[in-house]
Amino acid sequence: MNRKRPVCEELVKERSKATFNTQELTYLLDGGKEKTQRRKELEKLFHDDPQFHDQVPSVYLSHEEAYENALSKTLKIYQKALDLSDPREILTVADAILHDATPVHVHFVMFVPALMGHASEEQQARWLPDALTMRIIGSYAQTELGHGTFIRGLETTATYDEETQEFVLETPKLSSIKWWPGSLGKTANHAVVMAKLYTKGEGHGIHPFMVQLRNLETHEPLPGINVGEIGPKMGLRSADNGFLKLDKVRIPRENMLMKNAQISPDGTYHKPASDKLNYGTMVFVRVLLLDMLAFNISRAVTIATRYSAVRRQSEIVAGAGETQILDYQAQRYKLFPLIALSHVLRGMFAILMEMYKQANTDLERGVLDTLPELHAISSGLKALCSDMASRGIETCRLACGGHGYLLVSGLPRLYATTVAACTYEGENTVLYLQTSRFLLKCLTGQHKLGDSSQLKFLLDPNAPSVTRFNTELYGLDGASHLVQFYAAAAYRELRSVDTKLKRLQETDSLSADNAWNSSQVDLCRAAQACIQYYLAKNYVQWVSRSQVTPELRLVLAQLAQLYLLHGIYEHHGRFLQVGLSAEDLTAISSLITRLLDDLRPNAVPLVDSFDLHDMVLASALGSYDGQVYERMYECALQAPLNSKQVVDAYGKYLEPLFKNKL
Amino acid sequence: MNRKRPVCEELVKERSKATFNTQELTYLLDGGKEKTQRRKELEKLFHDDPQFHDQVPSVYLSHEEAYENALSKTLKIYQKALDLSDPREILTVADAILHDATPVHVHFVMFVPALMGHASEEQQARWLPDALTMRIIGSYAQTELGHGTFIRGLETTATYDEETQEFVLETPKLSSIKWWPGSLGKTANHAVVMAKLYTKGEGHGIHPFMVQLRNLETHEPLPGINVGEIGPKMGLRSADNGFLKLDKVRIPRENMLMKNAQISPDGTYHKPASDKLNYGTMVFVRVLLLDMLAFNISRAVTIATRYSAVRRQSEIVAGAGETQILDYQAQRYKLFPLIALSHVLRGMFAILMEMYKQANTDLERGVLDTLPELHAISSGLKALCSDMASRGIETCRLACGGHGYLLVSGLPRLYATTVAACTYEGENTVLYLQTSRFLLKCLTGQHKLGDSSQLKFLLDPNAPSVTRFNTELYGLDGASHLVQFYAAAAYRELRSVDTKLKRLQETDSLSADNAWNSSQVDLCRAAQACIQYYLAKNYVQWVSRSQVTPELRLVLAQLAQLYLLHGIYEHHGRFLQVGLSAEDLTAISSLITRLLDDLRPNAVPLVDSFDLHDMVLASALGSYDGQVYERMYECALQAPLNSKQVVDAYGKYLEPLFKNKL
Repeated sequence: MNRKRPVCEELVKERSKATFNTQELTYLLDGGKEKTQRRKELEKLFHDDPQFHDQVPSVYLSHEEAYENALSKTLKIYQKALDLSDPREILTVADAILHDATPVHVHFVMFVPALMGHASEEQQARWLPDALTMRIIGSYAQTELGHGTFIRGLETTATYDEETQEFVLETPKLSSIKWWPGSLGKTANHAVVMAKLYTKGEGHGIHPFMVQLRNLETHEPLPGINVGEIGPKMGLRSADNGFLKLDKVRIPRENMLMKNAQISPDGTYHKPASDKLNYGTMVFVRVLLLDMLAFNISRAVTIATRYSAVRRQSEIVAGAGETQILDYQAQRYKLFPLIALSHVLRGMFAILMEMYKQANTDLERGVLDTLPELHAISSGLKALCSDMASRGIETCRLACGGHGYLLVSGLPRLYATTVAACTYEGENTVLYLQTSRFLLKCLTGQHKLGDSSQLKFLLDPNAPSVTRFNTELYGLDGASHLVQFYAAAAYRELRSVDTKLKRLQETDSLSADNAWNSSQVDLCRAAQACIQYYLAKNYVQWVSRSQVTPELRLVLAQLAQLYLLHGIYEHHGRFLQVGLSAEDLTAISSLITRLLDDLRPNAVPLVDSFDLHDMVLASALGSYDGQVYERMYECALQAPLNSKQVVDAYGKYLEPLFKNKL
Repeated sequence: MNRKRPVCEELVKERSKATFNTQELTYLLDGGKEKTQRRKELEKLFHDDPQFHDQVPSVYLSHEEAYENALSKTLKIYQKALDLSDPREILTVADAILHDATPVHVHFVMFVPALMGHASEEQQARWLPDALTMRIIGSYAQTELGHGTFIRGLETTATYDEETQEFVLETPKLSSIKWWPGSLGKTANHAVVMAKLYTKGEGHGIHPFMVQLRNLETHEPLPGINVGEIGPKMGLRSADNGFLKLDKVRIPRENMLMKNAQISPDGTYHKPASDKLNYGTMVFVRVLLLDMLAFNISRAVTIATRYSAVRRQSEIVAGAGETQILDYQAQRYKLFPLIALSHVLRGMFAILMEMYKQANTDLERGVLDTLPELHAISSGLKALCSDMASRGIETCRLACGGHGYLLVSGLPRLYATTVAACTYEGENTVLYLQTSRFLLKCLTGQHKLGDSSQLKFLLDPNAPSVTRFNTELYGLDGASHLVQFYAAAAYRELRSVDTKLKRLQETDSLSADNAWNSSQVDLCRAAQACIQYYLAKNYVQWVSRSQVTPELRLVLAQLAQLYLLHGIYEHHGRFLQVGLSAEDLTAISSLITRLLDDLRPNAVPLVDSFDLHDMVLASALGSYDGQVYERMYECALQAPLNSKQVVDAYGKYLEPLFKNKL
């Protein structure tokens, strides 16, 4: 897949048309020249190292092969990366090489942090050194067959036995089997198990316990432990998500992670001081998720845009020769807003990371009021961004026609990996409802928005004023002008569901809970409108504040205006209700057409600026050289069914049929 | 997967709440009691036959295994089905058993029909008997690496050599390699190859040629033929889609299929009488596609609805115990309109099949004017219905949370199979544009709509009148009332893009072709609005005309009203522009809430009425008994990674790591 070839004619021509310096945009997207250089160093170190190259496209591997391939590569990455200072770099490298979760992802992202967050100092001294050097590999077992979202509903029990000073861990029924934890199936020999603590006949809720799962000599499961893999999934094939059934498994008292809550030897329970601090980790994971979503949508749109520049099909003007499909308006309308979406997410990630760091600093100074807001916003952001990114990737895939359906296009795997984020780390519908609940509580004063909050306008008794839509504004002025429409729409949606909730309670006499349930559809919409505004506002800000040359500024501004207009055109109902008219929509449609034309020459340069190594794209359709058909043909020759010219099934089934011997 | 178990408590309770007779609905959906009985007979014959049962879930198989498994089962189905009168029954049975394309699908659906449509009588006598008894298996090779949609662009050539009275078939470049044909990779030994005919130095466009691909004794490819499989895809894993490269392959003159065009031995070309008749086959394939889409969405929504009745998570009223997730409004809003969509598609299929038969009768009487309209409408229907069905299936999958991501939920495969229909048989964006082009030509009188056309109102100089939205109407009256809004929206969208096209040509001086390209986004929207209307209109008609008991009629009417309201709520921008007000939207939202509540007790009975055998569902989440967790656990134990407790990767990679021997 990575063999060097000459760049095809079409892409040479496309690149010559750039009106800006792609490297400048790369630096901006990476967050500075130094970051780009560091990324390039890592690429040199890893992507150019033949031990990480696939012999056949990794999408051709069976589940077992994919797991084994990923495990072997991951361990090599970790060995080679021992001197990397930032552990996030390892994750990025692994993602770029594997295009999939690694079989030890959860070890570093959940198990080690769980030790750091919940284990006492002695406990950390006991387990952390082995964990950090991977002498032990751990999983984090929380979700059960019957329980995901609703943590309080978890059923696994840990009952303290005072006599032996042990906990007895038990899976009381089928629905309580731990289910989904990564690495749990075949890789991990330890796990932090979340279980309901009982002592002296009393329950104390969910607590973390360190459980050794497998014999350290033989890797066989220990007595009472029934552990295995849960079976192949839509994506993330190289992760061995597992199940765990505990049959009266005894662990010493010292294996409850006791940084926060404790159990004395006599079984007395000591409550934790506070459990508010958990917010922080959840927010951090969601910030990282935005980065991953930005990365994935940029991969997909790079593949689809390059392919659309290479692919010719049909004619715009009959007889004038076949058209690059990037010249069809329908194709541009699909792809260009998604190039913008990558920028939106990249910018939002940078901004949110700053906010997260600020909130942590505040926390250390005892200021607690920014974190709940950040948590609520990050819930909505996670939901909306994962929805938009996964849909966007599928749009890219479909925009590649039949060839996008082949695994070697790289797009089916990207979709499967990305759409998983609509479900994990909080199911999206649940998260939209969380965001709405927070915002509505702010309306009634039950929560407080921070002084610097960008959502303060929602509390203003006066709706944001919307002036007439101005068709004359172009670029950044045009984009800024539109943000106000987004604000007005968000304001209206939130207020209107608030009114509805009150009406259901006052006029229809529903309880608050039932009114809430009867308004879920509108609550989700309100959250979406508020987060759409938040993204729009921050995106325009990110573009305005970027220190770039005028050439690049113009292109970024065109993209931003297109993104905001596209959002209005796709959800125009929401905007017609805050002052936009049917004539405005006609004007918007013309402006969109103009921007699609204006951006056309920069389409390939814009995706080139993501500067994604061919190994990172892993796509026969999207490589830098645009040699699409050559690569597809080469990949086909390596397809598993082509390992023999006459397949075994011929002798078994077809020959008897053809020769009438059935 | 199919072991009998007691039905779980939740589903017993759900079924006891039905307000209608599920069997009555089953008969209606099947098209009559006899059809249901016939279906049941086939199920007895096939589904209960152990030779068709999978030892492990077929989603666990590798690509080679999936192909071999499908081939073996398909041949058994055909043997057992020799006495089935209707060949469509075989397809249905195969689909239900394999959940995938069969490796001989193209043989029966394309190769044999191509022989019937294009081969002369002598040619049919020569090949058809062997084809029908599968002594030979054929593919249909049209699409090339570089060409799909644009048939005229195909590059494979067939040059007549007068001296030897042979055609020389040639793949002039990489992009001309035949690519995608089903069965071509490993199964077929013949193919009808579409190629550009040249004779006496002159080109005559694309014609069909019979080419033997493989030696009938050894199954090895013949000289000059480079054939193989194109590699694994997102779905349809058991089909061996293939490539074919022809290197000066000579075939006798008699191998050009000569029912229509002919070549004399001296190389003289004789034009076909007419090529209008091809429309018929394309329409027929699209009619069948609607049936498939209805089948697939009914499978997905059955799985998701049953699972949502079994699954409990969180609480609507704090402390009141965990709620069946079907009780959350957000979940109902996702699923119930999709139950309706299955009815929409089922009804549309029945209506379209009638229209198709009528058009054929007309054709025989020399009346040609219904077919072009049917063709244009069926293009739009194919596009919109495949878009809606595939998105709907993905909604069902996501509505099942994490477990929907497991292959054994059955949903990832259903999505992958269904979304392929957005691309094959005409890429959807291209089809929307075709529909718009037809309708706009009707506006200007270039085409004529048939007298009985349901779209005549689009030509009326007066827009459909929309009365105020009536909040008092419930059920079928409510649904009928809404159809007028759909008509008004369709009328407006089509007229507005027509105005835009004229403006671009007159004011902006664009050529007709360029104006068309600059309006593609709106053209697609106009087609969607028109087809949405068409579906709404026919759906309400289908419900109204159904001869059913009042109990069932009420439920069908509730569903229809919900479907139409949901369509308005989701695309409300379109309706706000034809007279709907913001207050109407509030009323609609209340009405939707009411209908979601009213339909709730019938949710499981409604999906039970699809009467889908567990083998047809092939889902651990959706089986009739609702024993979700048992089945998931059972399937997990069979997962490929669980064949050994300690995987080989342990010894290779983990042991050295754990024991510090790396």
